[in-house]
Amino acid sequence: MRAVTVPTPGGPEALIVSELPDPEPADGEVVVDVVATAVNRADLLQRQGFYPPPPGASDVLGLECSGRIRSVGPGVEGWSVGDEVCALLSGGGYAEQVVVPAGQLMRVPDGVSLVEAAALPEVACTVWSMVFMVAHLQPGDRLLVHGGAGGIGTFAIQLAATLGARVFTTAGSPEKLELCRSLGAERAISYRDEAASGIPLWVEVLRDAGGADVILDNMGAKYLGHNVAALATEGRLVVIGMQGGTKGEVDLGALMGKRGALVAATLRARPTEEKAAICRAVEEHVWPLVAAGKLNATVGVELSLDDVAEAHALMESGQHTGKILLRI
Amino acid sequence: MRAVTVPTPGGPEALIVSELPDPEPADGEVVVDVVATAVNRADLLQRQGFYPPPPGASDVLGLECSGRIRSVGPGVEGWSVGDEVCALLSGGGYAEQVVVPAGQLMRVPDGVSLVEAAALPEVACTVWSMVFMVAHLQPGDRLLVHGGAGGIGTFAIQLAATLGARVFTTAGSPEKLELCRSLGAERAISYRDEAASGIPLWVEVLRDAGGADVILDNMGAKYLGHNVAALATEGRLVVIGMQGGTKGEVDLGALMGKRGALVAATLRARPTEEKAAICRAVEEHVWPLVAAGKLNATVGVELSLDDVAEAHALMESGQHTGKILLRI
Repeated sequence: MRAVTVPTPGGPEALIVSELPDPEPADGEVVVDVVATAVNRADLLQRQGFYPPPPGASDVLGLECSGRIRSVGPGVEGWSVGDEVCALLSGGGYAEQVVVPAGQLMRVPDGVSLVEAAALPEVACTVWSMVFMVAHLQPGDRLLVHGGAGGIGTFAIQLAATLGARVFTTAGSPEKLELCRSLGAERAISYRDEAASGIPLWVEVLRDAGGADVILDNMGAKYLGHNVAALATEGRLVVIGMQGGTKGEVDLGALMGKRGALVAATLRARPTEEKAAICRAVEEHVWPLVAAGKLNATVGVELSLDDVAEAHALMESGQHTGKILLRI
Repeated sequence: MRAVTVPTPGGPEALIVSELPDPEPADGEVVVDVVATAVNRADLLQRQGFYPPPPGASDVLGLECSGRIRSVGPGVEGWSVGDEVCALLSGGGYAEQVVVPAGQLMRVPDGVSLVEAAALPEVACTVWSMVFMVAHLQPGDRLLVHGGAGGIGTFAIQLAATLGARVFTTAGSPEKLELCRSLGAERAISYRDEAASGIPLWVEVLRDAGGADVILDNMGAKYLGHNVAALATEGRLVVIGMQGGTKGEVDLGALMGKRGALVAATLRARPTEEKAAICRAVEEHVWPLVAAGKLNATVGVELSLDDVAEAHALMESGQHTGKILLRI
């Protein structure tokens, strides 16, 4: 089969389409004929050599896909050859075939094409697990989403607004801010804007609104102090990315004054059973809203597997909105 | 009534026993004739002017007491004049009488004297709310308790060990370490000891054991990096004191690698309803264990209200173990 590997870490040109042996399903696994996959920021880090796959995972890039089941391993129940699925992967999605633990398969939501379904697993599982399962966002709560125009951001805005939260978001251009508003954000604020006092405008806006009950953050160290300042009493800061660095100062006195919590996590490193539990929760709680047309994965660009270097360069440029898909 | 006030912030000599008007119970409140109160570290900070009481709370020091109900305000059900109680206070315990929201009253556990009961509310409510309600310690989990020989520490060790957790603890002298072991700690480690690699020995011991599922920390900034290093996968670091400073660097990459959480909180600032819910949970879950002799508040010293300056000086010296009581 054809698959994208990275023989030598580097820039987008380091991505090589090569010929690899077809995978075989082990106990509890299926092999999927991939129809589409999507680019995630973690793929860029892996390409650069900064984010090795977890033990046992494929060296092939790609954390999600859609497709049809090609073969079913021993001990798998409820799935058959030919079923249309999407899947949360530990790696291997940039390929014609991928092996998947059966628990990480999800059915394709009604009304979503098989290609578009490739854009759903990472955003749906990340947002549901971190914002709802970990941070317990409630209707009426104020949610602050950083990077609101990205794949995670656009999905988080829609899902939280649909479930009755008040959504505040940051983004970097007028077009991106308008996109965030059109998806349900009550306030979309340029991260470049400052308040009269010199603090970022988003901190002041959130403070004036009573603070953020939950913050979904992709910036890490750079925003740490400001995020704590923007939290509400008993607010939860959820760090899922570190685009602004990994080591930052935290004011424990300020956090204690708010009885605040800081959680940092990624989906990828979780054990298979936890991923399966998240996939079941997403099918139960999120897919009905997708099927009802309340939200969807915002697909910005569709490219082919041979355009993978272009896809990575586009994500690195920060110019895109929503998800970048690769058709296989 | 006689009560301890601090006309001018300062050292232990700033504590003045003065004559104040007797308090009257408002709606939902009772007045308690105080039999004993206990010294908490927050009292030292308040005396120094660093920790003003929350809005509406008494200027008189004292976050817990035991005694007998003297009068009952309108709308209070289930309590009568003469009832023996202990109570979690927002302030006012260093006095002959104190006004208490009825929800913050607790009955005295069977087998505990009314004087000793004054040592229970802060430790029981803090440990139950932070270690169990917030951090969800489970049987078999590894708990690391810093300052194991203090009031909070001794209670946390006993309660966690009784409920089936494996308890690791730090303290500062051979006598204190032995006390921690006698209360149920599996390992008690001097915070001064270093491993061969130069890191604190307690970090190495916890790492070798698989990491701490929960850490109860009173040091704040000074231990922040080491605490993150000592956490297990999905571990929860609970900061309830900042004796080692308020601002510290956190390695979000390390925290993310563990899918770890950092929570900082105090009991005192919580709203009355939350305190009442904690008191009910403590009566349900902790008092039966106290009554069964499985654990108790470790009372180190009993002094009188007139010895309040000596009591504060003793806590500041760090030489004491367990709680310091003041009989009224």
